[in-house]
Amino acid sequence: MSYVAPIKELQFVLTELADIGSVARHPGFEEATPDMVEAILEEAGRYAAGILEPLNRTGDQQGTRLENDRVVSPAGFAEAYQQFVESGWQGLNQPTEYDGQGLPFLIQCAVAEIWNSANISFALCPMLTAGAIEAISAHGSDSLRQTYLPKMVSGEWTGTMNLTEPQAGSDLSAVRAKAEPEGDHYRISGQKIFITWGDHEMSENIVHLVLARLPGAPDGVKGISLFLVPKYLVNDDGSLGARNDARAVSLEHKLGIHASPTCLMSFGDGGGAIGYLLGEKHRGLACMFTMMNHARLEVGVEGVGLSERAYQQAVSYARERIQGYAPGHDGRVAIIHHADVRRMLLQMRALTEAGRAIACVASAVHDHAHHAGDDAVRRSQQQRLNLLTPVVKAWCTETAQEVTSLGVQVHGGMGFIEETGAAQYLRDARITTIYEGTTGIQASDLIGRKILRDRGAEIGALLTEMRQFEAELLAMEGSDYEIMKTGFSDALEALSDAVDWVLANAEQPDMAGSVAVNLLMLMGTTLGGWLLTKGAIAAQRYIDNGSTDDFYRTKITVAGFYAAQILPRSTAYGVAVRSGAKDIMAMPAEAF
Amino acid sequence: MSYVAPIKELQFVLTELADIGSVARHPGFEEATPDMVEAILEEAGRYAAGILEPLNRTGDQQGTRLENDRVVSPAGFAEAYQQFVESGWQGLNQPTEYDGQGLPFLIQCAVAEIWNSANISFALCPMLTAGAIEAISAHGSDSLRQTYLPKMVSGEWTGTMNLTEPQAGSDLSAVRAKAEPEGDHYRISGQKIFITWGDHEMSENIVHLVLARLPGAPDGVKGISLFLVPKYLVNDDGSLGARNDARAVSLEHKLGIHASPTCLMSFGDGGGAIGYLLGEKHRGLACMFTMMNHARLEVGVEGVGLSERAYQQAVSYARERIQGYAPGHDGRVAIIHHADVRRMLLQMRALTEAGRAIACVASAVHDHAHHAGDDAVRRSQQQRLNLLTPVVKAWCTETAQEVTSLGVQVHGGMGFIEETGAAQYLRDARITTIYEGTTGIQASDLIGRKILRDRGAEIGALLTEMRQFEAELLAMEGSDYEIMKTGFSDALEALSDAVDWVLANAEQPDMAGSVAVNLLMLMGTTLGGWLLTKGAIAAQRYIDNGSTDDFYRTKITVAGFYAAQILPRSTAYGVAVRSGAKDIMAMPAEAF
Repeated sequence: MSYVAPIKELQFVLTELADIGSVARHPGFEEATPDMVEAILEEAGRYAAGILEPLNRTGDQQGTRLENDRVVSPAGFAEAYQQFVESGWQGLNQPTEYDGQGLPFLIQCAVAEIWNSANISFALCPMLTAGAIEAISAHGSDSLRQTYLPKMVSGEWTGTMNLTEPQAGSDLSAVRAKAEPEGDHYRISGQKIFITWGDHEMSENIVHLVLARLPGAPDGVKGISLFLVPKYLVNDDGSLGARNDARAVSLEHKLGIHASPTCLMSFGDGGGAIGYLLGEKHRGLACMFTMMNHARLEVGVEGVGLSERAYQQAVSYARERIQGYAPGHDGRVAIIHHADVRRMLLQMRALTEAGRAIACVASAVHDHAHHAGDDAVRRSQQQRLNLLTPVVKAWCTETAQEVTSLGVQVHGGMGFIEETGAAQYLRDARITTIYEGTTGIQASDLIGRKILRDRGAEIGALLTEMRQFEAELLAMEGSDYEIMKTGFSDALEALSDAVDWVLANAEQPDMAGSVAVNLLMLMGTTLGGWLLTKGAIAAQRYIDNGSTDDFYRTKITVAGFYAAQILPRSTAYGVAVRSGAKDIMAMPAEAF
Repeated sequence: MSYVAPIKELQFVLTELADIGSVARHPGFEEATPDMVEAILEEAGRYAAGILEPLNRTGDQQGTRLENDRVVSPAGFAEAYQQFVESGWQGLNQPTEYDGQGLPFLIQCAVAEIWNSANISFALCPMLTAGAIEAISAHGSDSLRQTYLPKMVSGEWTGTMNLTEPQAGSDLSAVRAKAEPEGDHYRISGQKIFITWGDHEMSENIVHLVLARLPGAPDGVKGISLFLVPKYLVNDDGSLGARNDARAVSLEHKLGIHASPTCLMSFGDGGGAIGYLLGEKHRGLACMFTMMNHARLEVGVEGVGLSERAYQQAVSYARERIQGYAPGHDGRVAIIHHADVRRMLLQMRALTEAGRAIACVASAVHDHAHHAGDDAVRRSQQQRLNLLTPVVKAWCTETAQEVTSLGVQVHGGMGFIEETGAAQYLRDARITTIYEGTTGIQASDLIGRKILRDRGAEIGALLTEMRQFEAELLAMEGSDYEIMKTGFSDALEALSDAVDWVLANAEQPDMAGSVAVNLLMLMGTTLGGWLLTKGAIAAQRYIDNGSTDDFYRTKITVAGFYAAQILPRSTAYGVAVRSGAKDIMAMPAEAF
């Protein structure tokens, strides 16, 4: 079965959990009506299923190649990208002043899930362009904004992030690329690795954002600046000029996302690539974080998209594959009737729905933080966004490992055969916990900058909201809620205890690093339980109001399964957090 | 860093946990002295590191190919296999009457771990031969045994298992291959899929064991017979005769284990392959299980081997990769000094050590079940082996998914690049939860045949042993034991409660299938805690007796980490078990 965008589910999450109604009340978002959202999701679903998804497997098989200094993308990708541009998808949530459609990021989040389900290798290209647009919007001069943004918002030009160097991965303070001033611009030189879509011929131009050091810059992160380095220079009239001195010199041979080129980029082999400073000197890392925070949310959404696709394919196989007998059925049955296969499918679905809910809620917070009329609301929503971003990035991608692996398992032996396609989702998903900051980096950000720095204020506020919800939940009547009550209360207690423990042990050296990932997983698991349970209550309201649609009943079943089988993991994460750094730091490095 | 066999660790586990001393007291095992074991492990380590490991990456890259009707294995494999035969490795634990060395299976288990760490694709070939030897020994006529076993025990001829057909995977009752009687033999026809090392030129002959139906055989599992079908017929004088009518007709394109051919085998395209009945007519499945139970233990060991290899590579990378700063260190540090990297490495190591301990203990039980002098001991040990086998197979391979994935994660972006090698372990490991019976099939075997059938008698005996150990543990003094006491007691309680719940709800339809995998994971996790804690106590004795070797201190640290970070999962598995079938069976198949 080919991919079908989960439009009803997305609408449910946008409406009932992310409260798109409150987002649409912000000035400029008037067009985000339910009808408009439905039309957008349906059109996205059609394009994804009709154009992107058929290229997913062929793209994986063909991969990309470097011919001379040009990267050749897989057959069909350039044409598909052309359609993407013509349909204006790149500008969906981009400012109308650059001819974007100015819609909420929340809708972009839903649409991005669809792109990633259909073809993550393809989806990476517009995702990086969007990040570059955000950084240029926030930090570019008027001239840079006017020159580059309209073409990027239309998708005619794409963008890249050039951060990593061989010695500078998670630790960007070690960046060595250089920028020498020359008139109104700079000459950039150095090598960057792992540059996704660093070169291709799907767009007329590519806008590289590059971290580099100015002469005499201080060591460490405070001496790095951000530069805009176009593949082709842009003439004053906006036409394209000479090829800049920036080239892909080799491509990586990767486990997955084969259809997206991962380039080793060389800047300045011919004397220095012309680049333009973005933002202030030596403040490049802060500027890059504008782009990276956006990208982190979208990478979380990649996890959701891959999980959804793996789930759909596993369900489809489980419906068709006849094997064995099951209680209550005559003769051989489709394996979807076997209890253990159902358990796997429900585990996949529950984790996917939880990830989607968390990502959409965080995206709505993103919209409030940027568009609310009230300053104080914007500030407080920004705090919430800061807290949620690492969880969206890391939890939705860690669970994608589990979900895509279960997808292989449901297929049995066929799952290990590449033709089936299930293994590709696992291979593709494997990068998502690594790039844009590993799970460890996200967890360190969460515990250090988002929890310890404000002494637990923002997470305290979130816990209070969840406790208020808990009180509502405990007052609900009906047997479906029993397991959700126990599951959610236990998880909330585990999270609350873990946060208290972390705050009380803030001074312990190596505590944060030792417990951070378990804390992040605990937080994601609990948030997922909160939102799925909220969804179950909302679904029950539809049923109480007379709906006989199976969809609502299913929301309740999936939330119950999550409460019974996923939420109990919270206790285990909590115990691990509270065990602290002792065993972890006890072993001498040589003893490993 | 290249692979180094963990000889000291294996010796520790064999001695302290699997009690090789008691195995060596059985008649025929007198040679299994500590010195002999050390010499064998060292020689295995040398051969694995020197010959097998260098072929692991090249074999992955080259893969196998079919030329005409011959399978070509990767460069160097035939020569490496020749050395394997010359060193007599195939016969290590095979009967001396066929010129084997007659050593305990426990030693084979340790050696097999080493083969699988170095090169799982290669190791699959002798593993399947060993299974075929076991089936022919148990069920073959005198003549078949004399004709085939000496050549197979020497490794000159290899063996395969031909079970699966497109419509008959987990459910072998659907097998359709046919066997027509003709004189003293049969003519076999039909297609078999997923046949590992189904063809190659590393050995002179290949002995296929094939499930097929006789004319008029009853439907279902009670109408399947087992046949020995050689690639080349064997003349009366033992020399090789005509090519039999059995051929590899295509090879699968797989996620991993690229260096081992996975064949579509066609029998009887030219009128029928000559085959010989093994065991009784219509009792083929029981005969095949002889082979399969053995293979299941060895697949568990594959999980351990891959986990160990992934761990070693991750440690090596973490020692070399300089990135960022860490408390208590000046300047940039190797990432092994980062708390979260240590957490990942300890998680990998703790799960690997637990899997190894469980697999070795089960292998010792295998030896007692086959070689103890006393009938009653043999019977009771066989019961224990039956109980442990599905746990070894499924738990050690499920944890291998986690460990090999963490191995990739430790490498960051480099982990996703195939040249690094970390991704190969993940790809190779992915098959281990699937073949020789999926995790779901193992769990179903555990709960149905091994727990419910004897109404909890054998697992009750095991729980009693663990409770006795708990009492000893609770009496131990020293702060290291605190976390182990809590962790193990909680896990044991969770397992005990889950077993009680399962026994009390045995009549509930779909209960077993719904809870089986969580029960199996709970059991594996608890067994791991039991054995690692036992190991910690043993290690403390060495320290108390004056040893200053870091190895013993490390055993205690790893056991403490396991108690703090892995054992708490037991509670979550327990809650999932006790949630039963309700949510899992509630959803209509169409609603997925």
